Amino acid sequence: MPLNAVLSHIDADLPNATDRLMKLLRIPSVSTDPAYEEACDAAADWLVGELQSLGIPASKRKTPGHPMVVGHGDGPGPHVMFYGHYDVQPVDPLALWNSPPFEPALEDTPTGRVIRGRGASDDKGQLMTFIEACRAWIAVHGALPTRVSFFFEGEEESGSPSLVPFMKENAAELKADIALICDTSLFDNTTPAIMTTLRGMLKEEITITGPSKDLHSGYFGGLAQNPIRVLSRLLAALHDDTGRITVPGFYDDVPDLDPDVARQWDNLNFDHAAFLGAVGLSEPAGETGRSALEQIWSRPTCEINGIWGGYTGDGFKTVLPSTAHAKLSFRLVGQQDPHEIRKSFRQMLEDLLPRDCEIAFQGHGASPAAQMSTEHPAFQKARKALSDEWPNPAAYVGCGGSIPIAGYFKEYLDMDAMLIGFAKDDDQIHSPNEKYDLESFHKGIRSWARILAELAA
Amino acid sequence: MPLNAVLSHIDADLPNATDRLMKLLRIPSVSTDPAYEEACDAAADWLVGELQSLGIPASKRKTPGHPMVVGHGDGPGPHVMFYGHYDVQPVDPLALWNSPPFEPALEDTPTGRVIRGRGASDDKGQLMTFIEACRAWIAVHGALPTRVSFFFEGEEESGSPSLVPFMKENAAELKADIALICDTSLFDNTTPAIMTTLRGMLKEEITITGPSKDLHSGYFGGLAQNPIRVLSRLLAALHDDTGRITVPGFYDDVPDLDPDVARQWDNLNFDHAAFLGAVGLSEPAGETGRSALEQIWSRPTCEINGIWGGYTGDGFKTVLPSTAHAKLSFRLVGQQDPHEIRKSFRQMLEDLLPRDCEIAFQGHGASPAAQMSTEHPAFQKARKALSDEWPNPAAYVGCGGSIPIAGYFKEYLDMDAMLIGFAKDDDQIHSPNEKYDLESFHKGIRSWARILAELAA
Repeated sequence: MPLNAVLSHIDADLPNATDRLMKLLRIPSVSTDPAYEEACDAAADWLVGELQSLGIPASKRKTPGHPMVVGHGDGPGPHVMFYGHYDVQPVDPLALWNSPPFEPALEDTPTGRVIRGRGASDDKGQLMTFIEACRAWIAVHGALPTRVSFFFEGEEESGSPSLVPFMKENAAELKADIALICDTSLFDNTTPAIMTTLRGMLKEEITITGPSKDLHSGYFGGLAQNPIRVLSRLLAALHDDTGRITVPGFYDDVPDLDPDVARQWDNLNFDHAAFLGAVGLSEPAGETGRSALEQIWSRPTCEINGIWGGYTGDGFKTVLPSTAHAKLSFRLVGQQDPHEIRKSFRQMLEDLLPRDCEIAFQGHGASPAAQMSTEHPAFQKARKALSDEWPNPAAYVGCGGSIPIAGYFKEYLDMDAMLIGFAKDDDQIHSPNEKYDLESFHKGIRSWARILAELAA
Repeated sequence: MPLNAVLSHIDADLPNATDRLMKLLRIPSVSTDPAYEEACDAAADWLVGELQSLGIPASKRKTPGHPMVVGHGDGPGPHVMFYGHYDVQPVDPLALWNSPPFEPALEDTPTGRVIRGRGASDDKGQLMTFIEACRAWIAVHGALPTRVSFFFEGEEESGSPSLVPFMKENAAELKADIALICDTSLFDNTTPAIMTTLRGMLKEEITITGPSKDLHSGYFGGLAQNPIRVLSRLLAALHDDTGRITVPGFYDDVPDLDPDVARQWDNLNFDHAAFLGAVGLSEPAGETGRSALEQIWSRPTCEINGIWGGYTGDGFKTVLPSTAHAKLSFRLVGQQDPHEIRKSFRQMLEDLLPRDCEIAFQGHGASPAAQMSTEHPAFQKARKALSDEWPNPAAYVGCGGSIPIAGYFKEYLDMDAMLIGFAKDDDQIHSPNEKYDLESFHKGIRSWARILAELAA
C-alpha cells in the first residue's frame, strides 16, 4: 500500500491531531498522587475511546493500581506491540510554571512552535504519534499495514507496580514479534535515534532516627546525635574524590566499553559543552577521565533525588530533629544486579551508622540494565524508515535513563523492544514548563507511518 | 524586716496566687502571630494593673511591636531590676494538647500537682513568682525590702526585635545594680541553679545551586553537579572524626574549662545516662573525651537544624534538583566572635565548593556567649537564699541555650544579670501540654522572697 498518501494525510490532519493530543493533556493523570486517581481512570477511558474510534477493539483492564489499556488491531504483516504510558509526573513546584500545567497550549518560541503542558513530551505526545500514524493508515487505506497491538499503562511515573504481574497474567495476549516503545529522544534535532542500551534503576528511601523526639539544640546540641549530620556523612561517603561510587562490589559487573561502540559514539560528535551549557553547567562532574556520553550511556550512577529533615520553613528554629530522610537512585549498567547492589548499599550504610542511630530503608523498585538485540531485522527496517524521514541517518544510541519495560518485555514475553522517540533535550520533562515540539509531534507521526510500512514490507 | 512572716504569708496565699496566674494564662499572648496582637496588649495591661495594685507605679510603653511594661517600686536597699516576658509560643500542633492551651487548670499527676497551659512555665509562671514575692513583702511589711524595677517584654518568643532599641532609649531609667531574670530551670528537682554562662549563637542558612533548573537524573545523572550531594559533602566536612568543628580558627577563643568549675560540675553528679535516656539515646555524641555537662555548658557546637532539596513527597521522583538548602546554628562560648566565625565558615564552604556550583548565605542573627561576674556580691547572696529554701545547695551552672537578654544587659546597661529559674526539664516548654509544677511556683515565690531579703541585707 502506498505510503505517500498516508504521509500527505498526516500533514493535512496535523491540526486535528494536535487538538486530540490537547484533550489528553487536559486530563491531570498524575499517577503518584492519590488525589488524581479519577483522572488516571479518565485518561485510560479516553484512550480506549480513541482506539475504538479507529475500529480497533480495545478495553480498560483493571489492576490493583491504575488501569491498563489493551487493544488489538488486525493487519497482514508481522505482529508489533506498541507500548506507551498515559500517566504523568507531578507538577510541583507549580509556581515555576508560566502557564497552568493542565491547560495545554500551542506556543511560538524562538526555536519553533511547541505544545506546552505536563505530559506533552513524556509520554502523552509521544504515545499519540503512534496512534495518529495508525489513524492515518486506516483513514487512507481502511486498514493497518501490519498487525498492531496497543498496550498503555498508567503507572510508569510511579514505578509500574502492576506492570509485571499484568504481563505475566496476560503473556499470551501481549506477546508479539517485536515491541515498539515511544518514550525516548532524538539524538539531536536532525538525527533520529534507536536506543539499544538502557541503564537500570534502583531506588531507595532512607530514614535516619537519632533522638526519640525533636530536641532543643541549646540543651542537647553537641551531645545528642543529630540525624541530619549523620545523614550528610553517609551520603557524602557514597562517592570517593574521583566520583566513583564506594558501595562494595558496585563495579563488579560493569563491563568495559566496547571499542566499536566507543568509536561510533565518538563519531556522533556529542557537544557536551552545549549539553551542559544549556543547564548552566560547564564540565562533566562525574567519574574523572570519562567522556560525557560514556558517563551518561555506559556508566552507573548514584544520585540523591531528595533530602529533608528538621525545620525547613521561613525564619529559623534551632531544633535538633529526631529524623532525617533522603531518596536516592542508582542507574545501573551491564550485568549489575539491582538486588545485590541494594543489599550491599544497605549493609554499607548500616556499617557506617554511629551508635544511638537507626536507619530504615524503603525500596522503591529495581530493574536491571537492558541491551537490545540489534540483529533483529526490525532494527534495520526501522533505521531505514527513520533515515528516510529525517535529515541525518538514524543512530544506535545508549540511554542514561531507565525504561524498565524494555527489560520486562525481554524477560517475561521473550520479545525484543525498539525504543524510538522524538523528544528533545530541552523538553523539560519532569520539570516545570514541559513542552513537545510541534515538529517532534508531526515528524514523529510520519516516522511511525514509515516504520509500519517498512515492517510490513 | 523579718522574713518568716513573708514566707508564711506566701504559703497561706498560694491558692490566690495560683488564681492570679491562671488569669494571665487565659490571655493568649502569642507574639509571633498577628492574630493575637490584641491579646498581647491585654497581657501588658494586666501586668500594669497587677503592679499598680501593689502600689507600684507602672505603665505600658509603646514599641514598633508589642508593648513593654515598666514599673518602679521604691525600697531602702540596692536597686534590682527584674526582667520577664509575657508573650508565649504558638500552640500548634493543637491536636496534641490534652486540654485547651489557654484554659489553664490544676492537674494532679504521678509526680505532683501541676499548672497546665501555654506559658505556665515559659514565662508567665516564672514571671509571676517574682511578682508574688513582692506582693507578700508589701502585704506583710507594707514595703519592698529593696528598690525593685520591673521590665516585661512581649516579644521574647519572636526574637525581641524591639528590646535593644528600647533599652538604648531608656537606658537611664532601666539601669540598676543588678538584673534578675527568671526564665531558666532548676538543676534538678532538689537543686536550684544560678546560671553563670550562656552559650552564644550564630545562625546561617545556605543554598547550593548546581544546574540552572531541575534535571532528569537519567539524562544528566553522573554528569551534572547534584547540589544535594555537594551540600552533603560540605556539611559532612564541618566536623572531623572526633566531633571537632573544622571551621578554621573556630577554637581560637574557646577557653579551657577552669579546673574549679570542672570540679564543681563533677560534684553535681549529672546523670547523663538518664538525661540522654529520656530522649532515646545512650551516650554523648559530641567531642570525644569530654563529659556531657562540659559539652553542653562549655563547648561550642555546630548543628544542622534543617535540610531540604529535591523531591520530598510520597513516592519517588528521580529528579536531579537545581538547589539544596540547609539551616545551621553554632552555639558559641568564651570569647568566640560570631562575626569572625561567620566569615570563616563562609570562606571554608566557598573554598570547598566544586566548579559549576554556587553558594548563597543568609545570616539569621548572631550573639556572643555571656559569662556572668560571679564576684558580684549579689551572686553569693542569692546562692545562700536559694540554698536555704531548697534541699540541696544552689549550683552555679552553665546553659547550653542562648538567652541574649543577659548579654544585652551587660552590653547596653553595663549591668550583670542573675538567671534564676524554677522550671523543670519535663515542663514541655514550646511543646504541647506545657506545665509548671505547683511546687516550682510555690518554692519559686519563696525563693525570690528570700533573695530580696538577702540582697537588702
